[in-house]
Amino acid sequence: MWTFDNFPSARVQNTYGFSPGQAWLDHVRLSSVRLALGCSGSFVSPNGLVMTNHHCARRCIQDLSTPQQDLTASGFYARTQAEERTCPRMEINQLVGMQDVTARVQGATKGLSGEAFNRAQKAEFARIEKACQTSDQLRCEVVTLYHGGLYQLHTYKRWRKDVRLVFAPEESIAFFGGDPDNFNFPRYDLDVSFVRVYEDGEPLQTPEYFRWSDAGPREGELTFVSGNPGHTSRLLTVAQLASLRDETIPLKLERLAQERGWVAQFAERGTEARRISRDTLFGVENAYKAWFGRRDALTDPVFFASKVKEEQSLRARVAKVPALQKEVGGAWDAIAQATRVEEKLERETTWIRSESKYYSELFGIARNLVWGVAERQKPDTERYREFTDARLPATELVTFSKAPIHSELEVELLTLGLTKMREELGADHPYVHEVLGKESPRQLATRVVQGTKLYDVALRRSLWNGGPAAIAASEDPMIGLVRRLDPEMRAARKAYEDQVESVVRKNSELIAKARFQLEGTRNYPDATFTPRLSYGSVRGWTREDGVQVKPFTDFAGAFTRATGEPPFDLPQSWLKAKDRLTPTTPFDFVTTNDIIGGNSGSPVVNRSAEVVGLVFDGNLPSLGGDYGFDLRNNRTVAVDSRALTEALRVVYGADRLVQELQPAAARTTGPR
Amino acid sequence: MWTFDNFPSARVQNTYGFSPGQAWLDHVRLSSVRLALGCSGSFVSPNGLVMTNHHCARRCIQDLSTPQQDLTASGFYARTQAEERTCPRMEINQLVGMQDVTARVQGATKGLSGEAFNRAQKAEFARIEKACQTSDQLRCEVVTLYHGGLYQLHTYKRWRKDVRLVFAPEESIAFFGGDPDNFNFPRYDLDVSFVRVYEDGEPLQTPEYFRWSDAGPREGELTFVSGNPGHTSRLLTVAQLASLRDETIPLKLERLAQERGWVAQFAERGTEARRISRDTLFGVENAYKAWFGRRDALTDPVFFASKVKEEQSLRARVAKVPALQKEVGGAWDAIAQATRVEEKLERETTWIRSESKYYSELFGIARNLVWGVAERQKPDTERYREFTDARLPATELVTFSKAPIHSELEVELLTLGLTKMREELGADHPYVHEVLGKESPRQLATRVVQGTKLYDVALRRSLWNGGPAAIAASEDPMIGLVRRLDPEMRAARKAYEDQVESVVRKNSELIAKARFQLEGTRNYPDATFTPRLSYGSVRGWTREDGVQVKPFTDFAGAFTRATGEPPFDLPQSWLKAKDRLTPTTPFDFVTTNDIIGGNSGSPVVNRSAEVVGLVFDGNLPSLGGDYGFDLRNNRTVAVDSRALTEALRVVYGADRLVQELQPAAARTTGPR
Repeated sequence: MWTFDNFPSARVQNTYGFSPGQAWLDHVRLSSVRLALGCSGSFVSPNGLVMTNHHCARRCIQDLSTPQQDLTASGFYARTQAEERTCPRMEINQLVGMQDVTARVQGATKGLSGEAFNRAQKAEFARIEKACQTSDQLRCEVVTLYHGGLYQLHTYKRWRKDVRLVFAPEESIAFFGGDPDNFNFPRYDLDVSFVRVYEDGEPLQTPEYFRWSDAGPREGELTFVSGNPGHTSRLLTVAQLASLRDETIPLKLERLAQERGWVAQFAERGTEARRISRDTLFGVENAYKAWFGRRDALTDPVFFASKVKEEQSLRARVAKVPALQKEVGGAWDAIAQATRVEEKLERETTWIRSESKYYSELFGIARNLVWGVAERQKPDTERYREFTDARLPATELVTFSKAPIHSELEVELLTLGLTKMREELGADHPYVHEVLGKESPRQLATRVVQGTKLYDVALRRSLWNGGPAAIAASEDPMIGLVRRLDPEMRAARKAYEDQVESVVRKNSELIAKARFQLEGTRNYPDATFTPRLSYGSVRGWTREDGVQVKPFTDFAGAFTRATGEPPFDLPQSWLKAKDRLTPTTPFDFVTTNDIIGGNSGSPVVNRSAEVVGLVFDGNLPSLGGDYGFDLRNNRTVAVDSRALTEALRVVYGADRLVQELQPAAARTTGPR
Repeated sequence: MWTFDNFPSARVQNTYGFSPGQAWLDHVRLSSVRLALGCSGSFVSPNGLVMTNHHCARRCIQDLSTPQQDLTASGFYARTQAEERTCPRMEINQLVGMQDVTARVQGATKGLSGEAFNRAQKAEFARIEKACQTSDQLRCEVVTLYHGGLYQLHTYKRWRKDVRLVFAPEESIAFFGGDPDNFNFPRYDLDVSFVRVYEDGEPLQTPEYFRWSDAGPREGELTFVSGNPGHTSRLLTVAQLASLRDETIPLKLERLAQERGWVAQFAERGTEARRISRDTLFGVENAYKAWFGRRDALTDPVFFASKVKEEQSLRARVAKVPALQKEVGGAWDAIAQATRVEEKLERETTWIRSESKYYSELFGIARNLVWGVAERQKPDTERYREFTDARLPATELVTFSKAPIHSELEVELLTLGLTKMREELGADHPYVHEVLGKESPRQLATRVVQGTKLYDVALRRSLWNGGPAAIAASEDPMIGLVRRLDPEMRAARKAYEDQVESVVRKNSELIAKARFQLEGTRNYPDATFTPRLSYGSVRGWTREDGVQVKPFTDFAGAFTRATGEPPFDLPQSWLKAKDRLTPTTPFDFVTTNDIIGGNSGSPVVNRSAEVVGLVFDGNLPSLGGDYGFDLRNNRTVAVDSRALTEALRVVYGADRLVQELQPAAARTTGPR
C-alpha cells in the first residue's frame, strides 16, 4: 500500500525486473480515481469514462431505480451517450498534488495535550485546507500518514455534480454467489460498472487514462493495483488490537448480526421491500463478514504473538536511545489508558454521540442540518471537521442527495436503532428517557419518519440556508428530535474527542516519530483512503485444509455452478448468450496484491500500465490484512479484462462501450 | 448450590444462627420439584398445586392459546377445578432417592480412553438407569457431579401425563419491562404461574409442601432457594474458559443476534405472527442476554486472572504428590488439546450433527423419529443417551407433544438455519450440496415444512411404532430429508464424542479426583440441573457506578414506571385495581442466594420453610455466576410472597387459589 511519492521501485526491479519510473507513476496516479463515498476507479478512455465495480455504483443504480424499473435487477446500458443518466450522489476525485505539511501541523500542537492538542491540530488542519481550497472543483485534505509521522496536504480535482451511469450488469451476475461467496474464491462475478464524468454538460476530457489489455493477465505476471485502501490498523498498539479483538469487534458483530436478521426478514415482506432494502442489507452483510474476518485474524494466537513481539522490539529499540525514550517511552501506556476509556465510553459514543445515526438516513440528514447550521456560525478552525469549509462539499453531497428515501424501511431501521439504544444504555438511563419519553421505539420512529418533510431536498436546503433561526423555528419532527438531543450528542462527542481521540492522536504521533527516526519510510503508512499503489503477481494459494486454489476461473465454471436459485442464478442474458461465449475465457482471478476495503473498483494493471483486471474483492484470509499482510494466503480477487470485454460484446451487445475501451480491437474482431 | 446430601448446615449456623437438620432438608427437597424441560417449582398445597414462573409455563400457556384466545396476552385463571387445563408438554419431577454409584462407573471405564472410555461409561450409565427404572412413573438418572469426582443415581417421581394450568397472569405484568429489563433490578414483575399435578384424573396428594408466609421476607433475613440450577462451569479448566470466551460464546452470540433480528422482524408481520413467534423470540433474547453476561464475566481480566491463579495453585498442589501427578498431571493439557479439536469441529457440530436443528421444531421431531427408531433396535447400552430406556420418556414427551407447530414460522426458522449452515460451512462444502442440491434454503424449507405431515402426532407415533421399515418407507419430505442426512449427522456426532467429549470427560474426572483427594466435598459441585439448596439473605448491592440498589420494590413503583407502551405497559386488570392495591406492598426483591438458569421458579423460603418469595431472575452480574459466584454483586431476583397473594386477591379475584395457599389468612382477611 505504497504512497505514490515513496514507491519502492528498486524492490520491484529486484523481484520482477521492472522499475516504475516517475512518468509511469504519475500516469498511473492520474489515470486512477477515488470515489469519494468509499471506492476506487480508473479512467479507461480519453472521454471521462470511469470503470469501477457494480457494488461501488450500486447506490446510484438503486437511486435511479423505481418500483417499475429495477435497474439493480435488470442492469443498465446507455446505448447512446444521450441515455447516460446522472447519479444523485457520486463524487469522483483525482489526486493532483501532495505536499508535506508535517512541520506546520506538529508546530501548531507543540507542548499541548488533551483537548488543547486536539483543538490546535484540527484548527491547523482547517487553516491549511481552507488556504488550499480555492475552488469548489478542488478537494483539499490534510492526511495523517504513519499515524502522525507525516502530514500531507492532498489536493484532488473533484467532480460531483454530473457523473452519469453508462453501464451496469444485472446484480445476479455482478454479485453471483451473493453473501455466501462474498470474500471467497473461486468466483464467477462480473462486478463492473462504467460511469462517465461530465463537465459543463460534456464528457470530461481525460488525456491520462489506462489503455485496455486484450491479452489479460498471465499466471505469475507482475501486477499493480492502484486504488484507495480505506483503512488499515497495522501500526496500532497491542493494547488497541486487544481492545478491538475483545471489546469493539464483538459488539460490532453482534449489532450487525441483529440488523442483518432484521433487514433480511424485512425484505421477505415482498418484492418492493426487497428492492428498497437491498442496499442496506448488502452493506450490513458485507460489513459483518469483513469484521468477522478481522476478528478471525486477531484471535489467531500466532498472529497476535507476532504483533506483541514487534511492539516489544520497537519499545526496546526506543529504550536504548535516552532522548527518544524520554519523549516517546510513555506513549504506549498512554494509549492503553485511553483505550480503557474508549471502552468505557463505547456505548455513549455509539448511541448518544449517535455515531450509529440509529441506522436512519433521515436522522443523519437532520443531524447534519442541525449541526452544520450551528457549526457554520463558528470560525472555520473551531468547527467539527466535517463542517470545515474544505469538507463542506462532501458533507453537502450526502445531506442534499436526491436519492430516494423509503419511509417503510426507515421506520424499521430507526425502530431497531432506538431499541438497541435502550437496550445498551438501559431503560432507566436519563438519555433514554430524554429520547423516548413515554413513547416506544416504534412509536417514536413512526411518528418522526412519517411526520418529517426532509424527503424534500429543497426543504433541507432552505433549513441549511435559513441558519439557526430556521432550525429553531422548524416544526419538523425529525429536526425537533435532533434539536432536543443536540446537547447530549455534542457532550458525548466532546468526551470522546477530549479523552480518547486527542490522547491517541498525540501518542500515536510520538510512536510514529520514533518509528520514523529508527526506520524512516522503509515501510508504507497505514491505509487512509488515499491513493496507494501495490505490486504483486497473479498467483493462487494453498488453503488451510491443503487444497490448492488455482488463480483463474472461467466462463464455463459459472454455468456449472449455477443452480438457478438466488444467489446462484445467472441472468437470462447470460443463459441466452451461453452458446456464443467462449467457455475457456478467464473470468475472475487472484493476485498477491495487498488491498483492503476502499480498493474495490481499482484497476489491475500490467507493467505497460494496461488494464488487465478489475479488483472487486479479497479472499477471506485477506480480511486479516487490516492488521498485517500475509503473502502466503492474502489474495486480491479481480475480474479479468478478457471477461469484461467478451461479456460486454457478446452478452450485452455493448458495442459503443467496447469500441471506447478497445478502439483497435473492436475494429478487428469479427463475429465469433 | 449445595446438594441436599452435603449441605453445610454448620456454616449456616455460624453465619445465621440456624442449622437446617435432616428432617428440614428432606421436607424442603420433597416440597421442591423440577420441571423437566428446564425450570424449578414447588408444591404449595397438599393438593398437588405447583408454583413456578410464568416464563416456565409459557410454552403451556402458548400451547393452550389460539388465534381467538391468546392466553399469553390475556392471562388465565381457572375459577373452578374443572376449568384447569392440561398442558400438552410438561413433566414434573420430585427427587426421592440419591445413591452413590461412583465405584461402579469408574470401575467400568478403568484403563480405557477415547471412544472405548465413552462407550463403556455410557453403557454403564444405561445399565444402572435401566435397573432402577422399574416404572414409567420413575425417572432414573446417573448424574456426574464434580465433573466425575462423584457419580450418583438420582431417582425422581415423575408426572408427565396430566399437569394442568391453574393460573397465569397477563404476560405484560409477568414480564413487565420485557427484554430491556430482563436480568435487571429494580423490577416490577409478577412472574408467576400455578399448575396442578393430576394422577388418575384427581389432584395429586402432596403431603410435603411449602406453607405460605404472610409476612414475606425482611431485609437481612436468611433465605434459602431450593431449585435446579441448570449448568455452571466453575470447575472448567482455563483452556476451556478461554475457548468459551474467544471462540464459542462469540459465535453463539452472533448466531443468536441474527436469529433475534430475524424473528423480531417476522413478528412485525401482524398480530398472529407476533403471537406464534413470541416464545421463540423470548427464548432467543433470553439466551442472548445470558451469553452476553457470561462473556462479560470472562473478559474481565481480574476475574480471569483469578481463574488462572486457582488452576495454577491446584496444579502445584497436585505436582507435590507424585502418585497424583503421575495419574492426573497430564489432564489439563489433554483437555486443552481436546478443546482445540472442539473449536475445529464447532461448525460441523453445530450444522452437521445438527445440534441447532436448523432452528426447526419439525426437523428436531423428524430427527428424533429417525434416530429413535434406529437406536431402539440396539441394546440399551449402545444407544445414544437420549434413547436409552431410562431416558426415552423424556424424549417422547417432546417428540409426541400435541403443542401446535406453526408452519409460517417454521419456514422462516428453517430458512434461516439452512442459510446459516451454508454460510458457515461454505457454499462448496459437500454437506451443503447434500442438503440443498439445487434448491435455495427457502425453497427447501418451504417444500419440507409445507409438505410434511408431522404436525399430526398420530403419524409420528405410527412411524415410531412402525420401526425401521416405516421410516424407510415414509414419503414424508421432512423424514426424507433427515434420512438422507443421517449418515453425516451420525458421523459428526461420533467425531465430537470420540475426539472431544470422551477426552474431556475422562480428564475432567481425573482432575476431579485430585480435587477430591485434596479438598474433599468442601465445595459444591458444578450445577447439573439437579436439586440444590442455596443459602443467602435479602440484601441490595452497590453498582459499578456507585449507585446503591435497595433490596425491595413496591407496587407504587410499577405504576410510576409504566409508560403505557410495551414492554412497559401494565395490563388493564392492574390499571383497574390500582386504587385497591396497597402502594407500599413489596413487589420484587433481591437476595444473595447463588442461582443460575434452571433455578427459575424456585421458591425462596425462610428458616421455617415457608415461601417468602419466588425466584424469577438474576441481576446482570449474576450471569457471570456461570464461572464463579461473586457475593459483592451477584443477586437473585424474586417476587415477594405478599405481592403474590395481594395481586391474586385484589387484581385477579383468585380467591379459590388464595384460599388454597393461605387457608388461615384467607379466612381472616376482610375487604381492604
